[in-house]
Amino acid sequence: MLDFAMKKSRLLLLLLPLSLSAQKPNIIFMIGDGMGPSYTAAYRYYHDDPKTKEVERTIYDELFVGSCSTYSYENPAVVTDSAAAATALATGVKTRNGHIGVDENNNVLPTLLEKAKLAGYQTAMVVTSTLTHATPASFIAHHNDREEEVEIAKDYLKKNSAKQLKFDLLMGGGLKYFKQAHKSFKQQLKTEKIALYTDVKSLDVIKKLPAMVFIDDNKPPFAIDAKKQGLGKLRTKKMTDKALSLMDEKRPFFMMIEGSQIDWCGHSNDIACVMREMDDFTEAIKVAKAYVDKHKNTLLIITADHSTGGLGIGNKISKKSTLAKKERKRKAYTWRPELIKAVNISAKEMTKKVYHLKSSIKMKDLFQKYMKIELTKKELKKIKEKRAKPCEKFNKCKLHDYITKLVDKRSETGWTTHGHTAVDVPIFAYGNSALLFHGFMDNTDISKKIATLLK
Amino acid sequence: MLDFAMKKSRLLLLLLPLSLSAQKPNIIFMIGDGMGPSYTAAYRYYHDDPKTKEVERTIYDELFVGSCSTYSYENPAVVTDSAAAATALATGVKTRNGHIGVDENNNVLPTLLEKAKLAGYQTAMVVTSTLTHATPASFIAHHNDREEEVEIAKDYLKKNSAKQLKFDLLMGGGLKYFKQAHKSFKQQLKTEKIALYTDVKSLDVIKKLPAMVFIDDNKPPFAIDAKKQGLGKLRTKKMTDKALSLMDEKRPFFMMIEGSQIDWCGHSNDIACVMREMDDFTEAIKVAKAYVDKHKNTLLIITADHSTGGLGIGNKISKKSTLAKKERKRKAYTWRPELIKAVNISAKEMTKKVYHLKSSIKMKDLFQKYMKIELTKKELKKIKEKRAKPCEKFNKCKLHDYITKLVDKRSETGWTTHGHTAVDVPIFAYGNSALLFHGFMDNTDISKKIATLLK
Repeated sequence: MLDFAMKKSRLLLLLLPLSLSAQKPNIIFMIGDGMGPSYTAAYRYYHDDPKTKEVERTIYDELFVGSCSTYSYENPAVVTDSAAAATALATGVKTRNGHIGVDENNNVLPTLLEKAKLAGYQTAMVVTSTLTHATPASFIAHHNDREEEVEIAKDYLKKNSAKQLKFDLLMGGGLKYFKQAHKSFKQQLKTEKIALYTDVKSLDVIKKLPAMVFIDDNKPPFAIDAKKQGLGKLRTKKMTDKALSLMDEKRPFFMMIEGSQIDWCGHSNDIACVMREMDDFTEAIKVAKAYVDKHKNTLLIITADHSTGGLGIGNKISKKSTLAKKERKRKAYTWRPELIKAVNISAKEMTKKVYHLKSSIKMKDLFQKYMKIELTKKELKKIKEKRAKPCEKFNKCKLHDYITKLVDKRSETGWTTHGHTAVDVPIFAYGNSALLFHGFMDNTDISKKIATLLK
Repeated sequence: MLDFAMKKSRLLLLLLPLSLSAQKPNIIFMIGDGMGPSYTAAYRYYHDDPKTKEVERTIYDELFVGSCSTYSYENPAVVTDSAAAATALATGVKTRNGHIGVDENNNVLPTLLEKAKLAGYQTAMVVTSTLTHATPASFIAHHNDREEEVEIAKDYLKKNSAKQLKFDLLMGGGLKYFKQAHKSFKQQLKTEKIALYTDVKSLDVIKKLPAMVFIDDNKPPFAIDAKKQGLGKLRTKKMTDKALSLMDEKRPFFMMIEGSQIDWCGHSNDIACVMREMDDFTEAIKVAKAYVDKHKNTLLIITADHSTGGLGIGNKISKKSTLAKKERKRKAYTWRPELIKAVNISAKEMTKKVYHLKSSIKMKDLFQKYMKIELTKKELKKIKEKRAKPCEKFNKCKLHDYITKLVDKRSETGWTTHGHTAVDVPIFAYGNSALLFHGFMDNTDISKKIATLLK
């Protein structure tokens, strides 16, 4: 009886926001690529003030409502890639790893962004990857191979069934793919009356939509490596701020915002890089949340496509501790974010610096300067040995992995893989219809629930 | 406005179950020791029927409502041990790692079980560890060193301020600690009119409370190694079933049930062992849920104290795959539970078998028989090398770890540590006041919320 009463009240609650709002709600859909449950927990401890006894809560703690499964179409491929996961979030349909906006048989799947446009919405995407990368691509393109970004770029200017351009605003990297995809890209945009901005500094001058804004010809640098000029480290925040300000308040909008490079840092097992990407993404979430506070008819929904790297907070109990056994167990069962905060460079850039080191500078000083790491003699020797071998890609070679391990060992950070894992990812929601996303669901359910709001 | 209306409705909903129920609710508090978010997700894929396209949902998916942080008192010890975590869950107060029911200054903290008894509740605990192990101990004992199980055992028979025995029913292992703690333990129980059962087969004959039921003199074996006789593999389920049937329906009860050994298998990085422990714990949850369905005035709340081992579902993309690169990426991004299901022994027992192997049996056959593993020549050689070295504890030596890695490599399972990690753990709830536990909270909040129901 009581149970039934509760269920009924809950149902009423869920329907409430739908029935009360006359205008269709704005939807801000934020995706922290690779941002699994250990990422948001680690981020809390990373930002904890050690001077207070309490651990300070983050915006993730404040907005947490549920959790979702991420497996992709193929059995037994329980571990999704970003293409299948983004397609699930964009279309509500499971597909094969590598597929962008198409099902397992390459049939085109309508996306939330496309549905929103047909329903009279303004549509926008803000990413820190190339605009043709798996996540944004799955919201606007249809192709069975995520690697073919030139092919994918061709879809962006195609009109929908109502002969409309599918997007109002796109912000991100990867201009080069559009140039390769379209013979005279600039001319084509002119014909279509789409404004093109290719200078990060021009963010302030954008006044009119539709527009394409490129902050990089290819992939933008990691936040941790970003220079102060241009958009700096908080590029997602700044783009989000601008994008929201460009939305016409008379019409609803659908905006997908991705913290794309959280995943890339995760693939690199580079914890300092991860935390700095999350700093940027978190600031963007705060901007979006403030927007919802001012525009109540807006849903802010945040999730991850999957978790990357199998990040573990806290590693082995340090055997080197000088404390007595019992005390060691008590004190050393820990994770040391202060050592991660001290690192001011990605392992990728650090690897480059080591390979390009001038003879006038000491290796030890380089690690002290950029990573606040005091190398042991053994570590110094190892680094020199690894440096003697060629490195094709600075984020893939053995020296790179050794550098990440220097930080992991000191901070007690663990990783299980350079790929993804299948752990469920958290869901955060705020504002209009946020209650729809409480509890456990599949990633396709998130998409289906958002789709009901567009109707 | 809308937001306010929603908040108000939500508040009403939360209060509803409290105001409607005249009698105090029964509370079944289940703790999956070490059962972090990757455990419950892995369990879903472990039990997925590969013949159906959909991934079947588990009882965890059905009951999921929230997530909680687990950090312990000490800064920067963000990684809790089981003592501090259980004390947080039992008392609502953060304490130092190693502390049982006492704060950082060794002050006694009243526990939920103790509060429940004083509020007129029947109290019970069902565990698969020793009854004096960190989790159950934190609900009934007060001591600053979890390792001293004899000292801890002394607290169990102490009376509360109302001169009552604190428990009505205790089921678990560790009889030896009670024998050591009390000069004439059996006599003392007789004097106190507490029934003592020390034979697992006697579960059916228990009719009256108070009672102490020991299913092992020390630690019961892993579920995966349990023999058919006695309680078998589903001992948590069977004990839960019996314990619930012994509760007098005229008075409310508080029952803590722990899947203690999920954590131990996690410390061993033994994935087959973990999944079989979860099988038992899951069956116990089903029994508890069925009880709630029949007794509406009952809260079923389930969580973990922390996550163990940094379990990662899906590991590196197999480089040995014969598939073309693109296909490999699609197909091999996976986790292989079918290979874990085929393992029918813990790594600890297998290590023992390898060390005790008779010359008449081939090593290869042993691995084939118990683990369905076809050893490569290289693996066989390594095993023989490691076996040549002495092994003090079968769950700690190098051969043990090598055996777990044979399964990990084949099933694509990853681990970051033999200790704990600080990732948030899931909360599951059902029945009376279940809505209290929606969203993010700290582990101390769970305890505080349960305490409000006892009043």
